[in-house]
Amino acid sequence: MALARIARNGLRRSGSVGSYASHNDTPYEGLSTCSYSGTSAAKVERGGSLAYLTSIKKVDHISFGSRGISVTPHYQFAQAERIVEESDSEYEKQKYPSLEATKPGEKPRVVVLGTGWAACRFLKGIDTNIYDVVCISPRNHMVFTPLLASTCVGTLEFRSVAEPVTRIQSALAKNPKSYFYLANCTDVDTDKHEVYCETAADVGLPHEPYRFKVSYDKLVIAAGSEPLTFGIKGVKEHAHFLREVNHAQEIRKKLLLNLMLSQNPGISEEEKERLLHCVVIGGGPTGVEFSGELSDFIMRDVRQRYTHVKNYIKVTLIEANEILSSFDVGLRQYATKHLTKHGVRLVQGVVKEVHPKKIVLSDGSDVPYGLLVWSTGVGPSDFVKSLNIPKSHGGRIGVDEWLRVPSVEDVFALGDCAGFLEQTGKQVLPALAQVAERQGKYLVKLFNNIGNQNGGKAFSTKDVNLGEAFVYNHLGSMASVGRYKALVDLSQSKDAKGLSFAGFTSWLIWRSAYLTRVVSWRNRVYVAVNWATTLIFGRDNTRI
Amino acid sequence: MALARIARNGLRRSGSVGSYASHNDTPYEGLSTCSYSGTSAAKVERGGSLAYLTSIKKVDHISFGSRGISVTPHYQFAQAERIVEESDSEYEKQKYPSLEATKPGEKPRVVVLGTGWAACRFLKGIDTNIYDVVCISPRNHMVFTPLLASTCVGTLEFRSVAEPVTRIQSALAKNPKSYFYLANCTDVDTDKHEVYCETAADVGLPHEPYRFKVSYDKLVIAAGSEPLTFGIKGVKEHAHFLREVNHAQEIRKKLLLNLMLSQNPGISEEEKERLLHCVVIGGGPTGVEFSGELSDFIMRDVRQRYTHVKNYIKVTLIEANEILSSFDVGLRQYATKHLTKHGVRLVQGVVKEVHPKKIVLSDGSDVPYGLLVWSTGVGPSDFVKSLNIPKSHGGRIGVDEWLRVPSVEDVFALGDCAGFLEQTGKQVLPALAQVAERQGKYLVKLFNNIGNQNGGKAFSTKDVNLGEAFVYNHLGSMASVGRYKALVDLSQSKDAKGLSFAGFTSWLIWRSAYLTRVVSWRNRVYVAVNWATTLIFGRDNTRI
Repeated sequence: MALARIARNGLRRSGSVGSYASHNDTPYEGLSTCSYSGTSAAKVERGGSLAYLTSIKKVDHISFGSRGISVTPHYQFAQAERIVEESDSEYEKQKYPSLEATKPGEKPRVVVLGTGWAACRFLKGIDTNIYDVVCISPRNHMVFTPLLASTCVGTLEFRSVAEPVTRIQSALAKNPKSYFYLANCTDVDTDKHEVYCETAADVGLPHEPYRFKVSYDKLVIAAGSEPLTFGIKGVKEHAHFLREVNHAQEIRKKLLLNLMLSQNPGISEEEKERLLHCVVIGGGPTGVEFSGELSDFIMRDVRQRYTHVKNYIKVTLIEANEILSSFDVGLRQYATKHLTKHGVRLVQGVVKEVHPKKIVLSDGSDVPYGLLVWSTGVGPSDFVKSLNIPKSHGGRIGVDEWLRVPSVEDVFALGDCAGFLEQTGKQVLPALAQVAERQGKYLVKLFNNIGNQNGGKAFSTKDVNLGEAFVYNHLGSMASVGRYKALVDLSQSKDAKGLSFAGFTSWLIWRSAYLTRVVSWRNRVYVAVNWATTLIFGRDNTRI
Repeated sequence: MALARIARNGLRRSGSVGSYASHNDTPYEGLSTCSYSGTSAAKVERGGSLAYLTSIKKVDHISFGSRGISVTPHYQFAQAERIVEESDSEYEKQKYPSLEATKPGEKPRVVVLGTGWAACRFLKGIDTNIYDVVCISPRNHMVFTPLLASTCVGTLEFRSVAEPVTRIQSALAKNPKSYFYLANCTDVDTDKHEVYCETAADVGLPHEPYRFKVSYDKLVIAAGSEPLTFGIKGVKEHAHFLREVNHAQEIRKKLLLNLMLSQNPGISEEEKERLLHCVVIGGGPTGVEFSGELSDFIMRDVRQRYTHVKNYIKVTLIEANEILSSFDVGLRQYATKHLTKHGVRLVQGVVKEVHPKKIVLSDGSDVPYGLLVWSTGVGPSDFVKSLNIPKSHGGRIGVDEWLRVPSVEDVFALGDCAGFLEQTGKQVLPALAQVAERQGKYLVKLFNNIGNQNGGKAFSTKDVNLGEAFVYNHLGSMASVGRYKALVDLSQSKDAKGLSFAGFTSWLIWRSAYLTRVVSWRNRVYVAVNWATTLIFGRDNTRI
């Protein structure tokens, strides 16, 4: 099976998927059908010396590092990693240390790629009396993504919205043959039923990543998606995404840094305005919630605690079409009015280029910024692109109604990285936490079902009854817009009729719903305490 | 006045100052009297081209960054920074943007360097009706250092032990002529009454730091100290210090990383033991408390949640002399017995060299490690060393009984960076939070006193009555040793008689004392909530 790189499990969803797609519909589709076309030139140019290649990789690493890029390092080196990858011959892979295939009489082993909504819901429910589980992910926790925007300004703390995966499924820590591996899946061999991994690139790790392979009886791919940048120059280098805890940490640090730097003696009015101009690209729920949080932060905390520069800080939300396009029209209007009233400037525009201190719009105008947050939806990751299997519309891993990858055996895919194949007659579902969680729950039932029919082992599902196919019913959407106001849209789709509310009551519903749905009791305690202390003491502006 | 670089304000204190001093008594004393002797060769070799120099600096930055050093970057570039510094001619400094000297009729301006115990206690108390205050520090918060060790394993969270300086003194945020600058002080001109600053080096900052100058009427230097490494090779590159929140963050990340990496398939027994060997150098309160916290973490959390590797994790505490040398002999014996009983291996030894994966002791033996924490006391920072003023024993800024720097006008120094001059007949006080805080409190009284006599402006203190001289009375020491046990030593000095306790009651006293003394109510709430959730849910092992 095809080479594949970089299992991502960033699972922050945005309702604005595709809001930019009209400008450039094919940046990843072309790649997904011919994933190595872009590297042939590199192949010719570069020799086979591994030492030389290693040094190239190091240089890339360093130069990226010194530019202070906000995205997690291992997503940056597609080019450099591919070079090294080409030296991973089949022969070398055979020598990798491994978790060997299960023996007859042993429990079947399910390997799960990812620790997002889909993966964690699956892990939580899987019957560990039937299966041994191995989870592989570059992060050891799940992020409660709907509340991530609140952590960027300190309304909530980072650890309040994250839960270790070994708490979600304690078998990973306790059962003798279940494991969590902090690693990226780089490749899958569906014939041999093996996944190839390397330890996640990170500060503090040795330069040569440790590689190993894991045999599976069943493979569950829930490796998530990547932010869409539409090939726009400078996005990856200068913008912050908002899908992981470390992204939120960086945004918070940058915001506090700019607030402090703008107070230095001799800073010009123009530079102050630039430093304190927060620009958000993309008007989906993430972009809107983040803008709302920023506006709250400014109205309360900046006014009280950065009085020297309080009049300089501004928020601009740039969207190509309409904000919150998946919401009911009445709610959209409410949100627009509310945000505008509380100081968020809404601009309709398309980004052409991103420079270190300004963005250029397609109409040629410059927008200087101090903080740039990019939230224009998600698309398939490099790992998904590189898998040589049929894809759904949009380049995701194609699955049938039972979330199986039909062209191969014992492989399932769900969440952001998966989509129904055209032949199923079903539409690809939006990249939402709700969808991923429902799929995870569904797959638990399916797995426990086939496990009980002794279909858990590799190549043993042929005569097994899979049960009912997966059906998705949308329960509705929520988004907060700041200043104790939120939107609740209970319609099943954009065109269907349904209840919708906006205002303070909706905000109470929003908070209550998330407080009850947050992963663990520990999270619940901390979210409640954070909200209370924010109300009493204001947000913490310690820059750590 | 002399050039001076890098105002540090790391204020983690350790009672073990000097426990290593017998091996190398003069590493900084020589430098402090002739601070530029080391750079003359560099001067000859390097041309005057600024572009060239900038590129040197960049390379240094990158190569350090890629080695994953745990100390805050700006402490690393003494060499590179000095090169740039030499181009800071007097002429260039005149052109710096500035906060101009106060005019007649305006309030006098006190400039405070640092945000540690001494600086923050002073800032908290200073009468802002008399003075405008400007605080300059590379961090915007104070760290409640006695509880920092608890954050390394998640008993407490990082933000629970940090408080923003603008909360400690709200005038910094609110008063029109008071400021907080996130910057390092690089130089002081006591004749002109000016300090020279540059924005703190940090990820996300532009490569060329922003420079400015600030005029003062009174200068309070509370810029702290630096960890002593005794010139031992490899310490700065491979060891973690434990004086700042980011140090604790790095230790926690590294510990969790090693716990996960050691579970990877194919890791040898030897490598597992190495990865999970936590070595602590220095048996002062910091080293002992950290060892105790680690032992707690292992006994409860690792055993429950890392069952695959729980038998491999070990803690070794290496001390050249005796642990807790400043404590009563009975308490020392109690601590030794308690730590040993709970799995901490105590080793008497002297470190010769530190390599990436092992340390070499002076007896030639190798100690492989996965995590190395260095806590052998503190000494003067590069900034203090470079000040061309008389020094106290140990190379600190020499002060008289009123904490004045007697050779110049309007300059005060306190905390770790200051020490009584020999002619005062007083001993240099230990680098303790207690000393620093008491000095800060004393200086508040002195400042409000001279301010009321119209002595606040520059060159106006001559006929002013300063009040009583500073007198220090030691109140005693406390240290926790893990597993709900602590030591409380109320004797005034090592040889004096006094009450001392050890055990569970002492641990309750220790917790109660720190809970009441922690900086703010917000801290108090979070410390209490953290302790409670640790008790109920265990420590959070999310690696973020």
